[in-house]
Amino acid sequence: MTPPTAPTASAAATPPGGGKPGTSLRDLIEQGAFATAQDWARERQVWEVVDEIDRMRPVDAVAAFRLLDADRAFDVFEDLEPAGQRAILEVMRGAEFSAFVDSLDPDDRARMLGELPAKVARRVLAGLSPQERALTATMLGYPENSAGRFMTPEVVVLREHLSVAAALAHVRERGADAETIYTLPIVDTQRHLTGVVELRDLVLADAASTVADLVGDAPRFVRATESAERAARLMADENILDLPVIDAEGRLVGLLTFDDADEVIEDADSEDASRQGGAKHWDGHYMAVSVLQLARTRAVWLVLLLIVSLLTVTVAHHFEDALEEVAALALFIPLLVGTGGKVGTQASSACVRALAIGEVRPSDLARVAVREAASGLLLGTGLGVLAVVAGLLFTGLDVATAVGLSLLLICLLGALVGGISPLVARKVGIDPALVSAPVVTTVVDVLGLVIYFLVASAVLGL
Amino acid sequence: MTPPTAPTASAAATPPGGGKPGTSLRDLIEQGAFATAQDWARERQVWEVVDEIDRMRPVDAVAAFRLLDADRAFDVFEDLEPAGQRAILEVMRGAEFSAFVDSLDPDDRARMLGELPAKVARRVLAGLSPQERALTATMLGYPENSAGRFMTPEVVVLREHLSVAAALAHVRERGADAETIYTLPIVDTQRHLTGVVELRDLVLADAASTVADLVGDAPRFVRATESAERAARLMADENILDLPVIDAEGRLVGLLTFDDADEVIEDADSEDASRQGGAKHWDGHYMAVSVLQLARTRAVWLVLLLIVSLLTVTVAHHFEDALEEVAALALFIPLLVGTGGKVGTQASSACVRALAIGEVRPSDLARVAVREAASGLLLGTGLGVLAVVAGLLFTGLDVATAVGLSLLLICLLGALVGGISPLVARKVGIDPALVSAPVVTTVVDVLGLVIYFLVASAVLGL
Repeated sequence: MTPPTAPTASAAATPPGGGKPGTSLRDLIEQGAFATAQDWARERQVWEVVDEIDRMRPVDAVAAFRLLDADRAFDVFEDLEPAGQRAILEVMRGAEFSAFVDSLDPDDRARMLGELPAKVARRVLAGLSPQERALTATMLGYPENSAGRFMTPEVVVLREHLSVAAALAHVRERGADAETIYTLPIVDTQRHLTGVVELRDLVLADAASTVADLVGDAPRFVRATESAERAARLMADENILDLPVIDAEGRLVGLLTFDDADEVIEDADSEDASRQGGAKHWDGHYMAVSVLQLARTRAVWLVLLLIVSLLTVTVAHHFEDALEEVAALALFIPLLVGTGGKVGTQASSACVRALAIGEVRPSDLARVAVREAASGLLLGTGLGVLAVVAGLLFTGLDVATAVGLSLLLICLLGALVGGISPLVARKVGIDPALVSAPVVTTVVDVLGLVIYFLVASAVLGL
Repeated sequence: MTPPTAPTASAAATPPGGGKPGTSLRDLIEQGAFATAQDWARERQVWEVVDEIDRMRPVDAVAAFRLLDADRAFDVFEDLEPAGQRAILEVMRGAEFSAFVDSLDPDDRARMLGELPAKVARRVLAGLSPQERALTATMLGYPENSAGRFMTPEVVVLREHLSVAAALAHVRERGADAETIYTLPIVDTQRHLTGVVELRDLVLADAASTVADLVGDAPRFVRATESAERAARLMADENILDLPVIDAEGRLVGLLTFDDADEVIEDADSEDASRQGGAKHWDGHYMAVSVLQLARTRAVWLVLLLIVSLLTVTVAHHFEDALEEVAALALFIPLLVGTGGKVGTQASSACVRALAIGEVRPSDLARVAVREAASGLLLGTGLGVLAVVAGLLFTGLDVATAVGLSLLLICLLGALVGGISPLVARKVGIDPALVSAPVVTTVVDVLGLVIYFLVASAVLGL
């Protein structure tokens, strides 16, 4: 044990592999330099190896995994992304296979199984011990993305009447098998959750007191079928380390631990980011998905929005006479629809995030509409004046006035559409993040163009 | 203690205040119904009250806070957002004031002080006990957003030679003052960090063993001056409950706890979301900031981008002859620049997120460029064919061909610009999230328009 004073020992300070630019496990594997790759992996920490394998195409991940020393392989496997685990499991055979699957935590196993092809999943289940198989099957019974899928079922529970000393002895006896012993749910004879004690309180308590003395307020909990994201956000908001998970009858079935909650939130935020960008979310690592998959996640929305965008052509077509008469009108189209889209994007990303972290509720619709409209009006007034001044550089006062006036209205429209769409989406049960920048932009493009041509027709008397 | 079987007892299932639609603490305060508001607050859990006060304008927050029973006021205060704490502290006087400030955790206090007006901050520091003042001053010495600002300095440390029994006795003696006892750093006589033991291992260990037997790999840690976000992401990636924080000499100065890490990540992600939307991030709650503040966070980027957008007018102006000759060209401008912006937004949001969670590194620039260019080319080919077909509904084959060909190139451009800009930003030390949807859209608008007019001129022989 040496004091970690050397700068390179700081994990947070040195990016993985950053010390030797140009060589990474991924590069070595792709170049077929397996001996060097093996040395690389031996010299690194487990998390550095995991990080590298996560970035590889599945076929390379399998090759890299085979190079690992047996005693490190399991540690690495456990921390890999599901896509990598899947690829490795699919090529594994016999005893090696069973050993790996059996030693995974039940929650990790259930999540991995949910993503495996049916044939492989059956093989995995068949290889498990009866007890492990029962745990896994129960977890697979909960809906995808529910708290039940992410919880750990291996929990140490206490009874209220126990003395502190007896409770500690019980924890010592059962603790080795549990994923955590920091949160100790208290249950009655029917395993109904009645309270929670923290290990901290148990350790610090007077040995003569009982568990009942240490129980605090009514315990927070989540039902196994409820959304894992919602439970995880609750934990983050209230600094809850592990949240008890109960079934429909109020019986304890597991704990959602802080690390599972972190994973749930990171995945949910990544999904929101993809959707906000106007793409489907893909499973797995950005560097590991193929270009074809990448394009496919984006194609659906682009084609849909291209079809909606044809409305802009229709609108412009409808006003083609005006465009032919005053060609200068066309000059400002990109500026106007572009700015409207930007105001809309600002409002929608603010509201999607505020909804996600619980700052805004669907019932705030009217209030948000007023706030965003007022903000859009303020911005529109400022930008409108700027646009009139700038417009005079290219054209006459009449067109410039039409541009400024249109910009004012388009900003109001953009802020309003961007601000309320996520709330309306949530109200009708759609993920607010689907009201993405591209969607808002497209809607504002079409309506903004209508506004522009109507205002221009009125101002120019066309 | 009753089993929580009634559906309304489920914290995650019932949104705060959701049981009684139409009434919320915020509404009651705004209506001046203080007696009803007091009853409301008495009947609710602390976190529900906090949630409501966070949503209020500062002046209302102070009024609501004054209604709370004395024994709950502190619990509520502790969990409020800094903006609300600030508002309340500014109107508080004398002993009440000192009591509040003294009983805050040092890390919460340091962060709050960092945001207070200098006059109030001095008053706060003056009111502290000498020991608390020293702790707070040390933390204020670390840069904003550094791990030092977020850590808890009150930590129970162990020495390697201790027996497990002695170590547990030490934890019992010192634990009450510490924010956590789950992570127990091990230090030498100079307080250099040499290892970490988890309380779990200590509790489960054989009483005859020593602390040295329980110490695992070289401990992960972060320097106090390093980025809190980076440290928090490391904790999330590696399921670290509490991360030791050391000074420049490798001496332990505190622990970054899981709840502080959650807060750091939530704030960083909210900031990314604002920036991705093309707005500055504001401090505080969406519902609590004024419309003027909201507009101000957005105005800077809008004005900047409006000025850049004038380039689109310049470009169109340059090709005004072509537009006058073939007015049909104008019809497709919103569709073309709009689609380019969308492809760019998809690519940039994917890469900003992948950078934030560490899936992509700045050194991946060339690889990302190739991936995004290939994906843009694929998407552009598909959309280009669609655009030719759709274009024929409105115009002749020559213009439709120009539109399709332009769209192909614009998609390639959009994906490339959107994909590599965040990496370039990180390389030159700018927050990648500032390469937002609006910024990418504006750049692609200008370049896309140039492409369109050049392609159209070539195809139509203008």
